[in-house]
Amino acid sequence: MTKTTLVDLQNRKDERQIGIDQVGIKNINWPLRIKEGKEVQTISSNIDMYVNLPGDLKGTHMSRFVEVLSEYQDKPISVKVIRSILMDLKKRLQATSAYMNVRFMYFVEKSAPVSKKKGFMDYRIEIQPFQNCEESEIRYKLSVPIKTLCPCSKEISKYGAHNQRGEVTLSAVCKDKIWITDLLKIIEDQGSCQVYSLLKRVDEKYVTEKAYENPKFVEDVVRDCAMSLKANSDIKSFEIECENYESIHNHSAYSKVVFDRRKR
Amino acid sequence: MTKTTLVDLQNRKDERQIGIDQVGIKNINWPLRIKEGKEVQTISSNIDMYVNLPGDLKGTHMSRFVEVLSEYQDKPISVKVIRSILMDLKKRLQATSAYMNVRFMYFVEKSAPVSKKKGFMDYRIEIQPFQNCEESEIRYKLSVPIKTLCPCSKEISKYGAHNQRGEVTLSAVCKDKIWITDLLKIIEDQGSCQVYSLLKRVDEKYVTEKAYENPKFVEDVVRDCAMSLKANSDIKSFEIECENYESIHNHSAYSKVVFDRRKR
Amino acid sequence: MTKTTLVDLQNRKDERQIGIDQVGIKNINWPLRIKEGKEVQTISSNIDMYVNLPGDLKGTHMSRFVEVLSEYQDKPISVKVIRSILMDLKKRLQATSAYMNVRFMYFVEKSAPVSKKKGFMDYRIEIQPFQNCEESEIRYKLSVPIKTLCPCSKEISKYGAHNQRGEVTLSAVCKDKIWITDLLKIIEDQGSCQVYSLLKRVDEKYVTEKAYENPKFVEDVVRDCAMSLKANSDIKSFEIECENYESIHNHSAYSKVVFDRRKR
Amino acid sequence: MTKTTLVDLQNRKDERQIGIDQVGIKNINWPLRIKEGKEVQTISSNIDMYVNLPGDLKGTHMSRFVEVLSEYQDKPISVKVIRSILMDLKKRLQATSAYMNVRFMYFVEKSAPVSKKKGFMDYRIEIQPFQNCEESEIRYKLSVPIKTLCPCSKEISKYGAHNQRGEVTLSAVCKDKIWITDLLKIIEDQGSCQVYSLLKRVDEKYVTEKAYENPKFVEDVVRDCAMSLKANSDIKSFEIECENYESIHNHSAYSKVVFDRRKR
Repeated sequence: MTKTTLVDLQNRKDERQIGIDQVGIKNINWPLRIKEGKEVQTISSNIDMYVNLPGDLKGTHMSRFVEVLSEYQDKPISVKVIRSILMDLKKRLQATSAYMNVRFMYFVEKSAPVSKKKGFMDYRIEIQPFQNCEESEIRYKLSVPIKTLCPCSKEISKYGAHNQRGEVTLSAVCKDKIWITDLLKIIEDQGSCQVYSLLKRVDEKYVTEKAYENPKFVEDVVRDCAMSLKANSDIKSFEIECENYESIHNHSAYSKVVFDRRKR
Repeated sequence: MTKTTLVDLQNRKDERQIGIDQVGIKNINWPLRIKEGKEVQTISSNIDMYVNLPGDLKGTHMSRFVEVLSEYQDKPISVKVIRSILMDLKKRLQATSAYMNVRFMYFVEKSAPVSKKKGFMDYRIEIQPFQNCEESEIRYKLSVPIKTLCPCSKEISKYGAHNQRGEVTLSAVCKDKIWITDLLKIIEDQGSCQVYSLLKRVDEKYVTEKAYENPKFVEDVVRDCAMSLKANSDIKSFEIECENYESIHNHSAYSKVVFDRRKR
Repeated sequence: MTKTTLVDLQNRKDERQIGIDQVGIKNINWPLRIKEGKEVQTISSNIDMYVNLPGDLKGTHMSRFVEVLSEYQDKPISVKVIRSILMDLKKRLQATSAYMNVRFMYFVEKSAPVSKKKGFMDYRIEIQPFQNCEESEIRYKLSVPIKTLCPCSKEISKYGAHNQRGEVTLSAVCKDKIWITDLLKIIEDQGSCQVYSLLKRVDEKYVTEKAYENPKFVEDVVRDCAMSLKANSDIKSFEIECENYESIHNHSAYSKVVFDRRKR
Repeated sequence: MTKTTLVDLQNRKDERQIGIDQVGIKNINWPLRIKEGKEVQTISSNIDMYVNLPGDLKGTHMSRFVEVLSEYQDKPISVKVIRSILMDLKKRLQATSAYMNVRFMYFVEKSAPVSKKKGFMDYRIEIQPFQNCEESEIRYKLSVPIKTLCPCSKEISKYGAHNQRGEVTLSAVCKDKIWITDLLKIIEDQGSCQVYSLLKRVDEKYVTEKAYENPKFVEDVVRDCAMSLKANSDIKSFEIECENYESIHNHSAYSKVVFDRRKR
């Protein structure tokens, strides 16, 4: 039996007349290439790829999603390449909308505040491009660990103040020229103090004292982030969340601000 | 130092004038009571509770969320009780909106299709009530395991067909009188075959043959769910997703249909 | 076709002569009953059940594991009941060894240290019973959240000290008469301070100051736990671990002590 | 205050005289370099690093673990480099034992069985080196997705047979000259059929039929793996597990064989 005789069930008509908003592959692990300066690096990513399906077609063609991914294997990922992948998905699958979710760990070398010793900080990133006939946009999700120190605990206690690791998550639709590292920098500085992978004793002293001098509620963190994000006109809309892994509880404190420049 | 002399920082004025959409506690594990027939059962749940915060107030009062939860400890959970919790949250925290996410495992005793032997099936449930000054709604999220058998694989192969576990997730806003078990039943029957915890050999034969006679793409599953859900006028809007943990790949096939009766 | 004509492949001879150490069902969600005072409560559990399989038998009978579980559905779980389940597994599956892992969330009502306000604390518990022809033992795993404050940070800083949530995990083989709540109490008090679900402002002051007065490295926590555990002759052997979710890093500090009374 | 005046609390004497088996950093995300042919690739890894601590010392020095990791940043990872990292840990922390757990996603380009179309397969890998004064060993953990088709379901049903994705996990202590790709190949072929990221229709037909012709219980998979692993004298000891994500249940079938060449 040759390929041509294998029936293409997916191409048949569907009687139910229910259009499908998103159909495709989910949770595929894939090596991506990214350009860092002159070097090209490989990173492990986790990807979803979807298109829409009109109400009169029985099914999409799942293998073509992976084929498209394979064809871009040697191209370092960029906004231009992502747009091109979505265009190919729409063409190959005869769709009018295409979506991706691309999740990966991003590393930035960061110096300790006093000793200047270097170590890597890790950030969870998700890029969510979307494209239909009229529109095209890219949503960036960044998760940034910070340190927060409770203003109330400091105010009411003879000494000390409870503090903890928090995680700020930004989800933003931006203009094309945005840099992930710029978004990270905006957020990273809005806790009571930044966190680092490598801290010598002089650094630990600095971090401890800085946090004590700079207490912030979970509400303060998202408000200060929101102020900085609103001031950047390259960011069209955002949701900013902070979750503090409270050191005095076994649950989190949480806060969220939503903003859309286009709806003002 | 007595309680009255402990400063209430949260009540202070905030100059930034940035209203907070959601603030509160996240990811707290808590025992809930539910009524099953005449018996009252305790279930483990995982809860988020949020309110809004006006732009001129510095912070919310985190401990009051847990106090409200504690006060309802003896009351079996119901739509009425949930509404009352949200009202209390708004009052105690001087807020205009209140939100909850309540996640738990739900068990239903289910008979095998031929032997009628009984075992428990488990479903992940999330209830998301919301309330502000004008509106009040409850969103139900249900995750239901099913079995799917690929129509294409059956069609093109001499014998056999690849099949796998899938998971259908419904997220729906419903009228008050809806029963979770009714929603589960609508979804559970839309795969190639249902799944069970306890199957004797006669049941395994039945399940294998039924799935083979009833092949379904991931697109078919969400379309058939959508047909049944649309036919139920107690459901105001829904998102229905299916994820198949493909047995021939290390990734999933995925499909989603969105519907809102109010926007038609 | 009736049940008696359905071939029992599993009962056939296997030529490979490779005995299987553990075979059975894994990751089944099941409602368990536990007795609390006079009340019987239902809790959500996640269970594995295994037996051994001799080298000359082709397969075990998976449905019988679930049948055994079903038969104990109405019996509140206890050491005696667990032993009986393992005996049934061995008999029904003609095995010489039987194993279970039973995971659930355990709630204890706990009063805040000053205001005495009550809220629930949640602990992850895993019970691992094992039985063969000669031996029978039960391993208890308990995960207990605590608060730790860094002695080094306190010592070198002008004010404040970094602190964070930590998690202590005990894995212990005990004599039959042990109580989970007693094991929890031993561990819970070994951090810089306990954590609570509900803390009013007077409690937050107490917790902050107590932690500052009682700084502990991750090494101190496991050593202090080990001292108390060694002093309890009902505990035959243990592994005690502490993981601190460092508030100054995006990684954890970790420490472990292993002890076996029988090997001294 | 200068660095020299910052007290080194960790170096103080400890009175409890409880030696600590493992102390260090856990769950740090870090970019590692690996050599693939002539190219050097960067991969995201997740690492634990521990040493022992004698009973008379108060604490270890956490920052030195990250410093050691940083110093090896430019060296592509290899057995030799891993050994050297452990030696450095022991020296820098005045310890007699050192441990690491290094987890990462490993990608192999794999051709579809008929169309020969290429796509990446992903495998979860964990490398666990250990070293003390007398011994040194490296444990490899590999998780390999496979497809399994139930022999019983095939035997008793008129047509079809339930099949599903399974995951085989090997944990092995090996001689130095072992290749991860060789271990993967041994395991990957022991299911009813391999899984692939990219399958065209001709491949789907092949995979479906091959699995139907080659039914295997979870017991068969680990036994066939065990046979091949025993035949490889470079493997000193192993645990081989298979977990089948049953398509007819919402739980898994599981099987494990343990083997130690040195204990025979």
